[in-house]
Amino acid sequence: MKNLVGACMFGQSGGPTSVINASAAGVFIQALKEKNITAVYGLAHGIKGLLDENFYDMSKEDAKELELLKYTPSSALGSVRYKLVDEKKDDTDYKRILEVFKKYNVRYFFYNGGNDSMDTCNKISKYLQKVGYDCNIIGVPKTIDNDLFGTDHCPGYASAAKYVATTLMEINLDAKVYDKGQVCVVEIMGRHAGWLAAASKLASYKGLGPDLIYLPEVPFCLDKFKKDVKKVMDANGGSCIACVSEGIHDKDGKFIVEKLSESKARDSFGHAQLGGLAIQLADLINAEYGVKVRGIEFSLMQRCAAHLASKVDVEEAYNAGKKAVEAACAGQTDKMVVFKRSSVDGKYACEYELMPLELAANTERKVPVEWITEDGTMLSDDFVDYALPLIQGDAKAPLEDGLPRFAKLKKVQAGKK
Amino acid sequence: MKNLVGACMFGQSGGPTSVINASAAGVFIQALKEKNITAVYGLAHGIKGLLDENFYDMSKEDAKELELLKYTPSSALGSVRYKLVDEKKDDTDYKRILEVFKKYNVRYFFYNGGNDSMDTCNKISKYLQKVGYDCNIIGVPKTIDNDLFGTDHCPGYASAAKYVATTLMEINLDAKVYDKGQVCVVEIMGRHAGWLAAASKLASYKGLGPDLIYLPEVPFCLDKFKKDVKKVMDANGGSCIACVSEGIHDKDGKFIVEKLSESKARDSFGHAQLGGLAIQLADLINAEYGVKVRGIEFSLMQRCAAHLASKVDVEEAYNAGKKAVEAACAGQTDKMVVFKRSSVDGKYACEYELMPLELAANTERKVPVEWITEDGTMLSDDFVDYALPLIQGDAKAPLEDGLPRFAKLKKVQAGKK
Repeated sequence: MKNLVGACMFGQSGGPTSVINASAAGVFIQALKEKNITAVYGLAHGIKGLLDENFYDMSKEDAKELELLKYTPSSALGSVRYKLVDEKKDDTDYKRILEVFKKYNVRYFFYNGGNDSMDTCNKISKYLQKVGYDCNIIGVPKTIDNDLFGTDHCPGYASAAKYVATTLMEINLDAKVYDKGQVCVVEIMGRHAGWLAAASKLASYKGLGPDLIYLPEVPFCLDKFKKDVKKVMDANGGSCIACVSEGIHDKDGKFIVEKLSESKARDSFGHAQLGGLAIQLADLINAEYGVKVRGIEFSLMQRCAAHLASKVDVEEAYNAGKKAVEAACAGQTDKMVVFKRSSVDGKYACEYELMPLELAANTERKVPVEWITEDGTMLSDDFVDYALPLIQGDAKAPLEDGLPRFAKLKKVQAGKK
Repeated sequence: MKNLVGACMFGQSGGPTSVINASAAGVFIQALKEKNITAVYGLAHGIKGLLDENFYDMSKEDAKELELLKYTPSSALGSVRYKLVDEKKDDTDYKRILEVFKKYNVRYFFYNGGNDSMDTCNKISKYLQKVGYDCNIIGVPKTIDNDLFGTDHCPGYASAAKYVATTLMEINLDAKVYDKGQVCVVEIMGRHAGWLAAASKLASYKGLGPDLIYLPEVPFCLDKFKKDVKKVMDANGGSCIACVSEGIHDKDGKFIVEKLSESKARDSFGHAQLGGLAIQLADLINAEYGVKVRGIEFSLMQRCAAHLASKVDVEEAYNAGKKAVEAACAGQTDKMVVFKRSSVDGKYACEYELMPLELAANTERKVPVEWITEDGTMLSDDFVDYALPLIQGDAKAPLEDGLPRFAKLKKVQAGKK
């Protein structure tokens, strides 16, 4: 526990979310207040900006714009997917990081991301400890996948979940509008954990959701899928809405999207020309039953629809950044901020705690199988109890000309790029 | 101009929108107030409900739920795609309609829809005039395509346009987050008129929109498309966002999606397995330049995202329904409500007028070519001046458990189904 005096650096990493900039706002606004922090730097494209000495002086930004970051989707500083190799194999990057930290007297480092980013953060932390360079390092969690270990939920998940649930309610009304039924297959992000597809259950809970939900936590069988859809169609005048995680796979672990693709011929360029998973599954149903089908992919919208962000999520994401700075300034290091669910007067509340960084790195947290119904096609109300408190309230950018007014950063260069 | 006393019937037809139920609310709430209207019926699935005597007694609905209709997407009564054949060829349907109208003493008929629906409405109107059955008939416009003749714009368009513009701003931030560029192709509804894809210009106007916009108003050339994208990529570090109307076609009128599909092999079922237009164009760019690509389709979301509705649109759609009833009760018939743009104190305002139904039927209004830049890849600021006033303000359903509380109708059967 050392009280250090020096600069702080903050980076954003991995796939963006609707609220990753809210955490950035929390870090910046708090860091600019701290007496022991002599400069506040924002890294361009995360760790890459660190290696390249490419970063911005955040004290030069207008307070209003930092505030607007709370409601601005994506990663305002730019993101990166860069995995540090093991230091024992090649310590080039680590030496370079140490060099940059020394050059700018960086004594506080905050890194915002998911599993891989926490792995990066952990590796830097352990290396600096090893070489005896004092720097308080705190990871700030984020991921729409909600699969980080040790935290009740992850910033970014709730807003994506709110998008999924709200949009499915709207799609439900639209898809069932004609007197003849149709089958809709909706593809939702989530390669290994089904948290986000599970959020479609919230729409079903409101009576306007999917009839079937398939997560990667349960092996997926194409024949069973066809039968499941047929059963729903027969009961609902030909209509069925099915949600699938992008990462659904068969019992041998093979991704269904790959399985379907392999049966396809290749085009004149020699590429397998694929629709996404949703379109391919919809085509399968059309080929089997000759019914009208539609494949829908939520694509980037599910992670960047900040106009539909959860107020709870925005506040918690902001606080995660703020608490990281407060903890580091109080001498904490080598930790990640985690959320603990509690209740105040019977109402949902969130407490912020710290967990050793190495526990967060590379461990995936999946949807508990006991929350999935026995036939593997729906979530139980346990999931509703878990997720509903997280999506409460609206928090969006002010309108200007009827469109969102997102943050505009000056990005004043501070590194010797 | 006859002041009739009797029942009124209202039906919804064609593809739903975010605000078609707002027009329904306008019709119902006003009709329930009118002394000359003895009963208010809502047709199940439009003209089909009329032919089947399948309709609901709207006086049985709670006032609160009728109010919530304003913010509930899709067609609450159910929609239909049914085109009446020419009465001279086969008058079976017309006789049946007359029979039902007589049976329930229907003296007011309101039909809400686009080109085809106004054609239906017009045919019924002309037939009843011919056989001398007194019934005041007013069409209520709607279509996200914005292609109805004789009206400055159509209810439903502005909310879809707001979805397109807002979502493209969010996608712009997300798609450009990494240090390496990617090419995004976004497919937007619009088979013959490009109004909705044009709305992506509003995002570009805000500095966060597509680099290229292609409408069906200009012939599309695949080779030129590749070159256009390359030019943008070269100027923007490899990034490019291109929006296309689903109906883009070559100079011979052949749809590009069909053209691309024909070059594809067929799968084991013998079906051409297609991604949508966006995915296929993105694949084309990937094959040509080997860059990261993403195809995005706004699918049903663009027409049912009521959580992002324009307040102006909701109010105008409501008023369109209300004015239709007022006009009919004042003795008007055989007309469609149209919007005329005016200004009050220099600010945008909308006036409601009436136009002969036959003018609305089957005529398509396209984006003026003079609003499209010479190279056919962008809209001018004339379009911004046109569209921006229409997307102002938010109007959405109240939240219940963090999710929209849409209208729940009892649908008390009134016809002898």
